[in-house]
Amino acid sequence: MTQQQTWSQRFESALHPAIARFNASISFDIELIEYDLTGSVAHAQMLTKCGIISPEEGEQLVAGLEQIRQEYRQGKFNPGIEAEDVHFAVEHRLVEIIGNVGKKLHTGRSRNDQVGTDTRLYLRDQIQQIRQQLREFQSVLLDIADNHVETLIPGYTHLQRAQPLSLAHHLLAYFQMAQRDWERLGDVWKRVNISPLGCGALAGTTFPIDRHYTAQLLHFDSVYANSLDGVSDRDFVIEFLCAVSLIMVHLSRLSEEIILWASEEFGFVTLKDSCATGSSIMPQKKNPDVPELVRGKTGRVFGHLQALLVIMKGLPLAYNKDLQEDKEALFDSVKTVKACLEAMTILLREGLEFRTQRLAQAVCEDFSNATDVADYLAARGVPFREAYNLVGKVVKTSIAAGKLLKDLTLEEWKQLHPAFAADIYEAISPQQVVAARNSYGGTGFEQVKIALLNARTQIEINSPTE
Amino acid sequence: MTQQQTWSQRFESALHPAIARFNASISFDIELIEYDLTGSVAHAQMLTKCGIISPEEGEQLVAGLEQIRQEYRQGKFNPGIEAEDVHFAVEHRLVEIIGNVGKKLHTGRSRNDQVGTDTRLYLRDQIQQIRQQLREFQSVLLDIADNHVETLIPGYTHLQRAQPLSLAHHLLAYFQMAQRDWERLGDVWKRVNISPLGCGALAGTTFPIDRHYTAQLLHFDSVYANSLDGVSDRDFVIEFLCAVSLIMVHLSRLSEEIILWASEEFGFVTLKDSCATGSSIMPQKKNPDVPELVRGKTGRVFGHLQALLVIMKGLPLAYNKDLQEDKEALFDSVKTVKACLEAMTILLREGLEFRTQRLAQAVCEDFSNATDVADYLAARGVPFREAYNLVGKVVKTSIAAGKLLKDLTLEEWKQLHPAFAADIYEAISPQQVVAARNSYGGTGFEQVKIALLNARTQIEINSPTE
Amino acid sequence: MTQQQTWSQRFESALHPAIARFNASISFDIELIEYDLTGSVAHAQMLTKCGIISPEEGEQLVAGLEQIRQEYRQGKFNPGIEAEDVHFAVEHRLVEIIGNVGKKLHTGRSRNDQVGTDTRLYLRDQIQQIRQQLREFQSVLLDIADNHVETLIPGYTHLQRAQPLSLAHHLLAYFQMAQRDWERLGDVWKRVNISPLGCGALAGTTFPIDRHYTAQLLHFDSVYANSLDGVSDRDFVIEFLCAVSLIMVHLSRLSEEIILWASEEFGFVTLKDSCATGSSIMPQKKNPDVPELVRGKTGRVFGHLQALLVIMKGLPLAYNKDLQEDKEALFDSVKTVKACLEAMTILLREGLEFRTQRLAQAVCEDFSNATDVADYLAARGVPFREAYNLVGKVVKTSIAAGKLLKDLTLEEWKQLHPAFAADIYEAISPQQVVAARNSYGGTGFEQVKIALLNARTQIEINSPTE
Amino acid sequence: MTQQQTWSQRFESALHPAIARFNASISFDIELIEYDLTGSVAHAQMLTKCGIISPEEGEQLVAGLEQIRQEYRQGKFNPGIEAEDVHFAVEHRLVEIIGNVGKKLHTGRSRNDQVGTDTRLYLRDQIQQIRQQLREFQSVLLDIADNHVETLIPGYTHLQRAQPLSLAHHLLAYFQMAQRDWERLGDVWKRVNISPLGCGALAGTTFPIDRHYTAQLLHFDSVYANSLDGVSDRDFVIEFLCAVSLIMVHLSRLSEEIILWASEEFGFVTLKDSCATGSSIMPQKKNPDVPELVRGKTGRVFGHLQALLVIMKGLPLAYNKDLQEDKEALFDSVKTVKACLEAMTILLREGLEFRTQRLAQAVCEDFSNATDVADYLAARGVPFREAYNLVGKVVKTSIAAGKLLKDLTLEEWKQLHPAFAADIYEAISPQQVVAARNSYGGTGFEQVKIALLNARTQIEINSPTE
Repeated sequence: MTQQQTWSQRFESALHPAIARFNASISFDIELIEYDLTGSVAHAQMLTKCGIISPEEGEQLVAGLEQIRQEYRQGKFNPGIEAEDVHFAVEHRLVEIIGNVGKKLHTGRSRNDQVGTDTRLYLRDQIQQIRQQLREFQSVLLDIADNHVETLIPGYTHLQRAQPLSLAHHLLAYFQMAQRDWERLGDVWKRVNISPLGCGALAGTTFPIDRHYTAQLLHFDSVYANSLDGVSDRDFVIEFLCAVSLIMVHLSRLSEEIILWASEEFGFVTLKDSCATGSSIMPQKKNPDVPELVRGKTGRVFGHLQALLVIMKGLPLAYNKDLQEDKEALFDSVKTVKACLEAMTILLREGLEFRTQRLAQAVCEDFSNATDVADYLAARGVPFREAYNLVGKVVKTSIAAGKLLKDLTLEEWKQLHPAFAADIYEAISPQQVVAARNSYGGTGFEQVKIALLNARTQIEINSPTE
Repeated sequence: MTQQQTWSQRFESALHPAIARFNASISFDIELIEYDLTGSVAHAQMLTKCGIISPEEGEQLVAGLEQIRQEYRQGKFNPGIEAEDVHFAVEHRLVEIIGNVGKKLHTGRSRNDQVGTDTRLYLRDQIQQIRQQLREFQSVLLDIADNHVETLIPGYTHLQRAQPLSLAHHLLAYFQMAQRDWERLGDVWKRVNISPLGCGALAGTTFPIDRHYTAQLLHFDSVYANSLDGVSDRDFVIEFLCAVSLIMVHLSRLSEEIILWASEEFGFVTLKDSCATGSSIMPQKKNPDVPELVRGKTGRVFGHLQALLVIMKGLPLAYNKDLQEDKEALFDSVKTVKACLEAMTILLREGLEFRTQRLAQAVCEDFSNATDVADYLAARGVPFREAYNLVGKVVKTSIAAGKLLKDLTLEEWKQLHPAFAADIYEAISPQQVVAARNSYGGTGFEQVKIALLNARTQIEINSPTE
Repeated sequence: MTQQQTWSQRFESALHPAIARFNASISFDIELIEYDLTGSVAHAQMLTKCGIISPEEGEQLVAGLEQIRQEYRQGKFNPGIEAEDVHFAVEHRLVEIIGNVGKKLHTGRSRNDQVGTDTRLYLRDQIQQIRQQLREFQSVLLDIADNHVETLIPGYTHLQRAQPLSLAHHLLAYFQMAQRDWERLGDVWKRVNISPLGCGALAGTTFPIDRHYTAQLLHFDSVYANSLDGVSDRDFVIEFLCAVSLIMVHLSRLSEEIILWASEEFGFVTLKDSCATGSSIMPQKKNPDVPELVRGKTGRVFGHLQALLVIMKGLPLAYNKDLQEDKEALFDSVKTVKACLEAMTILLREGLEFRTQRLAQAVCEDFSNATDVADYLAARGVPFREAYNLVGKVVKTSIAAGKLLKDLTLEEWKQLHPAFAADIYEAISPQQVVAARNSYGGTGFEQVKIALLNARTQIEINSPTE
Repeated sequence: MTQQQTWSQRFESALHPAIARFNASISFDIELIEYDLTGSVAHAQMLTKCGIISPEEGEQLVAGLEQIRQEYRQGKFNPGIEAEDVHFAVEHRLVEIIGNVGKKLHTGRSRNDQVGTDTRLYLRDQIQQIRQQLREFQSVLLDIADNHVETLIPGYTHLQRAQPLSLAHHLLAYFQMAQRDWERLGDVWKRVNISPLGCGALAGTTFPIDRHYTAQLLHFDSVYANSLDGVSDRDFVIEFLCAVSLIMVHLSRLSEEIILWASEEFGFVTLKDSCATGSSIMPQKKNPDVPELVRGKTGRVFGHLQALLVIMKGLPLAYNKDLQEDKEALFDSVKTVKACLEAMTILLREGLEFRTQRLAQAVCEDFSNATDVADYLAARGVPFREAYNLVGKVVKTSIAAGKLLKDLTLEEWKQLHPAFAADIYEAISPQQVVAARNSYGGTGFEQVKIALLNARTQIEINSPTE
């Protein structure tokens, strides 16, 4: 089979082989084959129901398509470049199997609505899988958090020690990001799960087809209301790529933190051998390759998002061949984000150990309780900004004297401001500093326990899409 | 006032002036001032309600803040670079106006949650305005479409004539894109309208604040469940930038089409003088500057999206100064998309005239009715792929003979295939070609009329966010 | 062999299989194998020369490496995922072949400088190939231009007819872009062709190696002056990706023009069957898939450039695993730009035919000679801006009257301005309009002929890098 | 003045005010005014020289233009939106000042070649300034490096301690990056410094102009060889944006390191008050705002690069209004990179203090001398990979025993391998570990001293462009 036989007889000469290679998408769109078959089966059933083909013809088409599915699964169907794309490959094989009836399959549709259908079916599956992975990632975060409600860890802004935190609270921040990711994919789903099947090449079709029937067979929520829009819309790919870019943003932030924590200087976690790698020349090295790669792969996904935006910019309606370029970017993004979620989940589950003793020591050795001194005064009537200025001064003097706040005598405190009393020492102990931030969503232990309970409940909810 | 006075007494020496300039955000974050004041008023009211400050103090704070609002509106409040940012500028002025009580305002909050609140209040307003603009854009599309249900226009794939269309159908494709944009912004809204106020610097606060109360005063739907997440989340900015990037994709596609239509070669529209520009040297020129600029500005918005993603990549928790860079990108994107929507709406409303006669002529002079010949045969039992191949052959012969399909004699048709009868001529008239694509969402006039009615209904629905 | 054996004995347990898969680069860095072998041969020769290993050992290493090369070329060397990367795969096979001596190969180097060396050797080859392809592309442009010096084509600004052009002149614009691309790659080459070999892991090595010797063996122009910089620099990849992004910009512009020219409306070119494709449902279609795909692939390359920038942003020194992500983006960009250059060169050489008659007709039917009327007056002393305004008025009246400028009577011209004489008719004939733009670099035929000659000379110059 | 008066009389009605606002570029292209005047002066002188206008007219034009320059410098020339752009603003004012002769200025040119000229003159200046800033940045790096040749600092790969380094060596890596930036800008310059003046709207001009003369007056190295290319080329902007993106990559990497170094955990530097900022609520905070902002602004510049690429993609020749969008992205990138270079130079010069004692301690407390043990054995005939494996085992045992390598007894060493002798202790002292990496470009003190000398020499070389 050559392309010229699949296209019309309008063409006299064969494609230049280099051009055929350049145009062909079969090397990557074969990934869609099962979705293509599923879509074609639904199309054949609809043609039958609408009386466009006979029931016998319909049965033959379905049987032929299912045979191709079996052949593919058994590794026996391997269309080469002469097939141009997965759609022609399937149609050609179908005619081989069931003869002339196979030539009726393409009635009332076009490759333009067909590939749109395939891509949406594919993406729908992927979204469900990614959402499931997000749930596992969240679940691991909660498991660790459960064990570390009372483990303290320095909290940072500007990578400077700011205020100590419950480690569980810190991890719950990532839980929340993943929760937004999960919800966002639910919104993307709404604009993915719409059927373009039956939009034809661009204008609909002259056959009395029933688009709502195929949509129903394929579990689409609705159908595109405008045929031009249906075949040329790739918003849903871009919106998905934005959603996974945000997943990558979150994973890259967590990665950065793990890389820091695993450094000699921070020393907050130990990497297990099963999730770390060595150097080819430095025998002592144990490297956090997983979070580094995840951080690097973030750029890859951003790049695919930009690629898609660039592809769509300024394209006149309706379908243009440029759209063929959406697939590799989409497939690679899906693979990347799934691999990263899997690797990070494994890393958290079995590759990291928090060094609690070192963490406990860390929170005692800095000025991250300074805000609490200001708050102490403010709670006793000193205007906050005044209290803040006063404490700034103490910090400066203490640093110069090589002392921490806990080292000041009560007298020194009282000289600073008469409102200080003996309870200042408790107020600035790391444990109390954390406990006292008991505002809603704060790091106070009480709040964290409530947050953990809420989080557990949250991940038990599954969206209607699953 | 220098920065050192606003910060703590921990600092001994003043900022290097070039560094002060480099760090200061007042030149652009002044755009947030009204939102900052509104947020501060709510914060002051909450401090009062929770007994953290006295009712008198609360009243003084509110009065002072409202006075600043008046001063700003009257152009009397113009903080310079020494103010660092809008938050310090307001606090400093407040203390000038109401004295020491002003120093109590910052109790139980931080600039980190404050700027997050301001940005969300700003963006909420902008989303509503953009959604309103989308409705106006859609409305103009419908007005034109109403007048052009029966105007035919060539439909293209690959910029090659494919099948003729109802012009209304073509315009409705853009209506649908705008509809998705409108809905997408509704989803973005859900993740914008969450209050970070009270998250403090990163860990919550020791004061018995009521975050749900400020959220209610400020009409937020909910509050951030985790304080670290609350102060370091910029997902909502990125998600918004993705949504407006898609608006720009759609506008750029329409722009491209208008530029083509306005060319000598297409000649489908005439540009009115009020929406076109001239050349400095070619006296005959009338240029479609508006759609060209819109197409160009698309890159600008994509660039801002990329910038934000890059900024967020790999940032450790919680707040980092990098986040300050979100604002100019966001503000410029908002301005750009609003200006483009306005300009395109004006262009459509009063700057374009469709040349219906030329369009009518265009659809008669090509082979875009070839599919209908294949469909004609397929409807008479010839397998579609066979019919398609047959028609391809006729097209080739006709081009060689300098004829169109309508020029073939009935005899010629019958020689081609015995199924052809005299009704083939009607079947391939452009009017009938369009009418016959009566599948749901197709270009058939009947379908288009239904689509128009549905569209009118759709834009009357306003989201709960408005 | 497992990774643990290749790394040090510091590791107790094996890698988690999913993590091993995630980290491994062998599936794509196998592309570098020949460069890796070449680099290792040079390294072994240098170790011998410097007396770090014995001549016999050196010979064994080289022989072993060359045997691997043969095995690879014969398809017998197919390392699996357990090899981690191409470097370990080669070293492991080497030890299998030559025994313990193979374990001496890695003396005085690290994978960090090794992969840097491999990538540069690869990229050097690719730059030469791409430059060669640019020369072929330029050569085809010149061949066509030679035949079309006197073929006129409308020239556009804002896609509005501006001034008629020699078609050769139009094509020469693309020649110039390609010339810049060629020169730019020459500049990129300067920063690619620097040897990092011997930088070690990051700090150099304790062995008395000779980096200049390996550089010389591998035809590098110089060596990195700083070892940290040498192993962590990826500027050269980014700079290359920017250079190929610009090639894609140029190809996308030409693609856009060919798509326009091939449309029914422009009709300036005919696509040959060998370089066009059909539709699955519209039998008449002949689509310009090549330029559409090229235009689409532009986004892909831009995406890879952004990906690399994102990857590098904010990475601390020296090597980080994130850098592994440079390879797939680079490889795919190279493949993409080479495929696009090849396809466009074929398309120009044998896939396009300019419809000269239609072009000749096109330039006679518009107001693109209006500037020449203004110039006519300006040359006769009327200030240009005045002349321009006058002509604007005539254009407006003529359009209203359905006339072109050539249709005005001499009397009408004279009424407009007394300076007009009978020679105005010749001055505004398309042929003369083009001929008269005889300024340097202009479209005047004389200039175009000179430009063609210069261009021919230019592409005979080969850079010192080839 | 309204736009209609500047354009031709072809237009009947005025621009819609919103559209006028949308199109106008005067609000930002006023930045080009001095370059516009300089270009116009050269153009007027050329018109005179070529006899196209009289010497008197030429003198009047020049005088008028210089008067506008004075007015602008004195703040008296403030064109509003009705001027559309800087070119029309100047021409209009010129006619006001010198009357009708002013209308002759635009003879033989167009705004298309004019704005290209202006942008190149602007960018040329900026490149020189940025190169000068790079030299200052390099110079500060050298000043610090001079003082720290023998200061040791841990060297990292994967942010894990790898091998100790001379601090000077570490800083010299950034020197080298800046050197590449400086050289790269020199290459960009070659493609910036080409004159498009006289390319006209797109096709050249009918007037006997002398493009080489204006090029010479304006110090361009050459002239564009093709007029279409000359007016539609923006490669030079993109290439420049790529070059400054790489500067930002380098600054962002240094920023990341400074942020790490300034953290409590690393503690390698102290930030001076003059270059750090505080918190609004945490009195103890001293934040590294400068490097954080620089890191954030990196995204901004990448975004502008992407914007420009997107703008250019798929634009047909020649000028399109989309190109107007190049300016704000370019101007903002220039401002950003200049501000970042300035801020980082100040930060290095007076805002950072290396804590040498802490650094000295750091390099003694880890296994970053493990490679040296392997090298020790390899130098005594043990195959490197074998030695490496042996040392890996020692590291593992030592960690388990809570010991460092220096803590092993000679007996323990000898048990490990008989080749060990008493000199192993010296071989693994940090000082010696660094000193021994004396390969070219390595961190050995001898090499570093040579590198410093070479670097000093390098920055004294100024490029021919300056």
